[in-house]
Order: sequence, then C-alpha cells, then structure tokens
Amino acid sequence: MNAESSRQARRARAALSRLMEPTDWVGLALVAVAGPVDALRIATGELAAGTALQDELAGVLDRGPGKGSGALLAEALQRWAPRVKDLAPDRDLATIARFGGALLVPGDELWPPALADLQLGAPLCLWVRGSFQAGIAPAGRAVALVGSRDSTGYGNAVAGDLAAGLVQQGCCIVSGGAYGIDAQAHRSALAAAEGPGPATVAVMACGLDRYYPAGNEELLRAVADRGLLIAEVPPGAAPTRWRFLQRNRLIAALAGATVVVEARWRSGALNTAHHAAELGRPVGAVPGSVYSANSAGTHRLLRDGSAVCVTGAAEVAELLGPVDAAAGAENGGWQAQPADHDGLGVEDLLLLDALPVRRGVTAERLAVVAGLPVPRVLAGLGRLEIGSLAVQDATGWRRGRRG
Amino acid sequence: MNAESSRQARRARAALSRLMEPTDWVGLALVAVAGPVDALRIATGELAAGTALQDELAGVLDRGPGKGSGALLAEALQRWAPRVKDLAPDRDLATIARFGGALLVPGDELWPPALADLQLGAPLCLWVRGSFQAGIAPAGRAVALVGSRDSTGYGNAVAGDLAAGLVQQGCCIVSGGAYGIDAQAHRSALAAAEGPGPATVAVMACGLDRYYPAGNEELLRAVADRGLLIAEVPPGAAPTRWRFLQRNRLIAALAGATVVVEARWRSGALNTAHHAAELGRPVGAVPGSVYSANSAGTHRLLRDGSAVCVTGAAEVAELLGPVDAAAGAENGGWQAQPADHDGLGVEDLLLLDALPVRRGVTAERLAVVAGLPVPRVLAGLGRLEIGSLAVQDATGWRRGRRG
Repeated sequence: MNAESSRQARRARAALSRLMEPTDWVGLALVAVAGPVDALRIATGELAAGTALQDELAGVLDRGPGKGSGALLAEALQRWAPRVKDLAPDRDLATIARFGGALLVPGDELWPPALADLQLGAPLCLWVRGSFQAGIAPAGRAVALVGSRDSTGYGNAVAGDLAAGLVQQGCCIVSGGAYGIDAQAHRSALAAAEGPGPATVAVMACGLDRYYPAGNEELLRAVADRGLLIAEVPPGAAPTRWRFLQRNRLIAALAGATVVVEARWRSGALNTAHHAAELGRPVGAVPGSVYSANSAGTHRLLRDGSAVCVTGAAEVAELLGPVDAAAGAENGGWQAQPADHDGLGVEDLLLLDALPVRRGVTAERLAVVAGLPVPRVLAGLGRLEIGSLAVQDATGWRRGRRG
Repeated sequence: MNAESSRQARRARAALSRLMEPTDWVGLALVAVAGPVDALRIATGELAAGTALQDELAGVLDRGPGKGSGALLAEALQRWAPRVKDLAPDRDLATIARFGGALLVPGDELWPPALADLQLGAPLCLWVRGSFQAGIAPAGRAVALVGSRDSTGYGNAVAGDLAAGLVQQGCCIVSGGAYGIDAQAHRSALAAAEGPGPATVAVMACGLDRYYPAGNEELLRAVADRGLLIAEVPPGAAPTRWRFLQRNRLIAALAGATVVVEARWRSGALNTAHHAAELGRPVGAVPGSVYSANSAGTHRLLRDGSAVCVTGAAEVAELLGPVDAAAGAENGGWQAQPADHDGLGVEDLLLLDALPVRRGVTAERLAVVAGLPVPRVLAGLGRLEIGSLAVQDATGWRRGRRG
C-alpha cells in the first residue's frame, strides 16, 4: 500500500484503539474483514456494513461468541456510539510523539511477531515509549516475571536475582509495572542492563502519558528512558480492571515464558500464567514457604501441574529453550558433591562399611562383618585399594579416603 | 502348620535375618521355594539343595539377577558361611523379649499386608518393640515423613505441623528415627497422639537393642514406649550404609504416601521417595526457599515431576485418599476471599469499573466511560443494583459494596 493509505490505516487503528476496549471481538473481526479504515467508518456509522461483509464477519466470528453477525454488529455499534465524539487520533498521535513514543501497527518492522499467536485477539496497535527503535526482544529471549503487588522480602529478592541473571544471559524482562514483584523485576533488569535494546518492557493497562501506579512514577520514567513502555490503549486511557486483565494477555504473548515469583491464592499473576498456558507458552512458578500467603498461588500452580518449579535464572532460561538437565542440576547452586561410595557395587559398599577407620583387620574378619566370602572380600579390597578407599598396613586392612 | 513347626519357622527366620543382609535376593528366593526351615539348613550347609529346588530357584530368580541359580547359590553359600558360627536365634529372640518386643513373621496377624508390595524384596521378618499389639497402621492411614538430618528451623516447623495435623486426622507417622526431620516428625506425632495404636513408627537400620543415633536415644525410647520401633535386622546388628538404604524401602512400603519435607540435592530422603515411587505410592515434596540448600532436593523432585507439591496436612492426606480439590483449596490456609466482581459478565465488569465511588453520574456518562450503549448500561445498572454494587442517589449512579 502507498504511504498515504498506510498513514490512513495507522490513523484509523489509533482511533479504533480508543473506540473499542481491548479484545472487543466484533471490533477486531470487523478490522480483520474490512481493514482498519473502513472498519472505523463502519464503527462510527459513516459507512454501512454490506451483507457480503456481514457474511465474512460471521465467518471470522465463529472464533468469537456464537450469535448472528448482524445482531452482534448492531450491538457493537451501540456500544461504540457513545465514544465516537471523543475520537481524536491526531491528538493522540501528537501526544505519544511528544513523549518521544510512537504507534506500532501490524506490518511495521518493529511489530512483535509473537503477538500473532493471539490470533484474532492480537491488539489493534501498540502505543510505545522508550528505546523501541532498537526493536522489542523476540519472545525467545523475553521472560515475563510477574507476581504479588504486596510481595515479601523473599519474593523481591528472587525477582531481583532472576531478572538480573536473565538479563545477564541476554534476556529481556517483561512485566506489568505494578508494585512489588513487577517493580522489583523492572528495577533489577535496568540495573543489570548492558547491551543495546531494552532490558525490560513494562506493559501498561493505561495510556502512556500517565504513570500508574503513582508510586512507581520514577521507576516507570526510568523504564521509559532506558527500557520500553507498551500499551494497547491510547494516551489518556484510564487503567480499569478489564484493561488489566487484557493487558496480562499481552505480557504472556510478548514473553517466551512466564514465571510467577509470588502470588496469593487469588492473584492477577495467575491470570497472566493462565494466558501463557493458553498460548502454549511454558509457565514457571517459584516455590516458597508454605507459611507465606504470597506463595499460596505459586504452590497452587505447582500442585495442579500448570507450572514448572523454577529456583534460579538458569532453570527459567531452560523454559525458553530445550531443557538441559545438566544446567538444571547446577543452577540451584547446590551442586552435588561426589561421595566416596559413588559408583560402588553392592559388595564393595558392604565391604567399605565393614572397613575400620583406625586399626586394620584381617580379610577373614571383614568377611564376617560384611557378610561376604573371603575370596570376594580379597577381590573387593583390591578394587577399593585402587581407589585408595582401602589401605593395608601392619595392622591389616582399614578404610582410606578417595583422592 | 502346627504350633511346633510354626515355632521352628519363626526361629529359622530369626536366624536367617542375621545370616543374610536385607534384600539378599538369592536368600529370599531360597526361603520362597524351600521355606524358612529348609532354607536355613541349606544356607548353613546342613542340607544340600537338590536339582528340583535349584530349578524352582532359577524360576524365582528371574526376578533377580540373571545368572544360573546353581552358581548364584554356591556364591551365596560362600557369602553366608562366615556368619554361620555367629547364629544364635534363641538368644536374639530372648533379647527382643527382654525389651518387651517380639518377632513378626509373614502370616502373623500383625504382619503388615502392605509389605506384600515388595514382592520377593519383602523382609524375612520384622523385629518390633513398643505397642505392636495394637497393630501397625494400615498403609492407607500411614504417612512417611522424611528429610534432612541437618534440617532448618523451617523444615522442623513444617515436619512438626504435618505430623501433628496428620495424627489428629488419625494417621500414623512413619520415619527413620534420624536427626532433623525424622526426629521432629516422631516427636510431634507422639505429642499429638491420643487414641490407641502407635501414632508413630521408627524403622531402624540397626538392632532394636541399641539406639542410633545416640543423640536420639531419649526420643527412640519414647517411640519404643508409646510408638513402635521396627527393624528387619536382629538385635546387635550395626547400622551400615547398605542397611540404611534397604531400611528406606521398608519406610516407603509401610506408608501409603511418602513426603519429603527437606532434602539436599543428594539425600537419603530422596532414596526413600524413589522406593515409594517404585512401589507406585504417591510422593509429596514440601516447597521451600530457593536459597535453602535443604530444599534443593525437594525442588528437584517437584521439577522432575516425581513428587506432588504439598503445603499442609490436608494436602498430604489427599495423597492417601482420592483427591479432594476443595480440601486442597482450603488447606493452604489461604482460602480465597470472594471479591465484589466475582461472577460478573464482561459488560457488568466494565460498568463496575466505570462507576464513581463518591459522587454519582448519569447513565449517559457511564455509557461513555464504560464504552457501552445506554440501554445496556441501564440493564447492567439494574443487575449491579440487585447485588448492591451500584446505588442511585440524588447525584446519580455510584459504586456500592456487596453485602
């Protein structure tokens, strides 16, 4: 399409993002079949929807609710009507520009391919602020860290360690800019950031001209400065419960894996995890104290099998790529120490236990203690001696130490 | 069988338990085909094994290692020979009697049926001390609580709470009498005990005439007094690594479910969990801090899917019986509180968010804010008003509170 029509389409999507709530299925279907420009003209009553279009709409909406498309469209038009007079896409585009931001639409080079997994539920457009020119991290390198707003010191520490560890491995941390775990994840990601490209992305439920929650203004300014702010709602839009719930699907879709660090039994973070699971993205949950209300939700995810237990950055990274058992083994940080008896057969084990530590004894005595015939004892002593687990001196055979 | 032959069989098993190490496959197979009395005579060289018996032995041993039964038996005879002169079953039986204990053999009324799941690996006999007359709890009411010897305060608290909670639900706590988690589980079970029958069972790796570890002597005496001590090795037997490993299979087999409370990356508790899994018994693991070395093992079990995440006594009890989601929901102790917006449809949710808390507004205004047609707003307000989530006054419509 030429520059002018492209400009029109971009302007139309900007307008539609104010007219329609996130995941307004009829609206999204209308754009899918009529394109943004005509969709806007239809949505604002400027253009009537022909029967051909309504049939197409019916086809697309088989993926949405199950009414006749005509009725659904009529209903939607009523729904959109009250907002038509408030439409001001040029003003909104000027506003985001004033904040050094931009509007991304499908087809743009910077449009995140991962959003295609949302199918009809993909956002009409993305309002962005920050270092978006460097490009948004591909889902394969983006991890969503989410959790309680009233997080504990433990949850904050884990969120901080995971974010830092993942950023150091070249990952980008996606979260919701909320208090608690979200804030800790963004903060730690910014602190660990080195390379170009945003180390963290905050997906907002309100317009990017405001900072919500207010207490996070400084942090969100920092994210806008050195990271990336994203919203599907236009400047000026207020954060509503519905927009928060829909925002969570964007967090899950932009990240290759979602990790719940802390969550109460009922928590928005679980909603994000649910979106990730629906998208077929791996979900991780951080274990914690059984006495902590802030871990009841993560333990719930572990119990019902909808999340994998993750205890460190390496295990989270595994969620993104192919599972690497070895890395998993190390990452807890509690790598197993080899023990003297590793790899010994049953008889050698019996013999090892029978060997006295100080004063040596005869092979015959060992045969009694270990419950082995003398020849086997002698053979076993030979094997253990090679590993210096058995040593012979004037007193007889006694226990040695490997290495 | 008559009283005399029964006495002979009992005496023979007592002797065999000293002659053979736990799970000596050839020995167990020999007893299976020849019966304990002849098995002892063969094992001690008093009686030769006929070809017919050797053929039977070969059949049984298909479940064991894969050599010819003749060679295996010859080898075993050499293995047992050094201990023949130490056999003194009457002395051992007198010893256990002196401690107020007894010897249980298969067929006894008190013999735990659950041990049958060990098939050929079932113990030759059980040396018991304590309130065994009341009977050992059936596996369906027995839970194994195991874990680190160097447990943390957190692990001890969880072990104590789980043991107390389970005993109050009529369960019996099975463990290994070791320091740390084992000791805490036994102690808490004894403290919570009310009804008849042992509230806790300590399965020992040494003879019941000794208390190992020494530091637990007082606790083990209390278990022997008000609970139950069990061992498959005879009085005087020393605790060896091999016997500890085999003891773990008895813990797993006697319990309907095994729960690892705390475990390092390498831990004997994981061995017990492994035995439980092999027996097809459910395994639970208690989550903990990702910074605790003592939870690295439990998190490993959760990660590789070999254990279910358990956070309270009710969830552990679920492992024993059919899963009850409701109980699971409650037991974390963090039962979800109903929220104002529970069960509301999308439109009502949008409307609820649009309602001002203080000064009321008109339905037309709400239509703009919520993005809904006026008629739907009025319908929705009607629904919300019923739940008193919306109230109308002179100023117009505003937010109400449920209940």
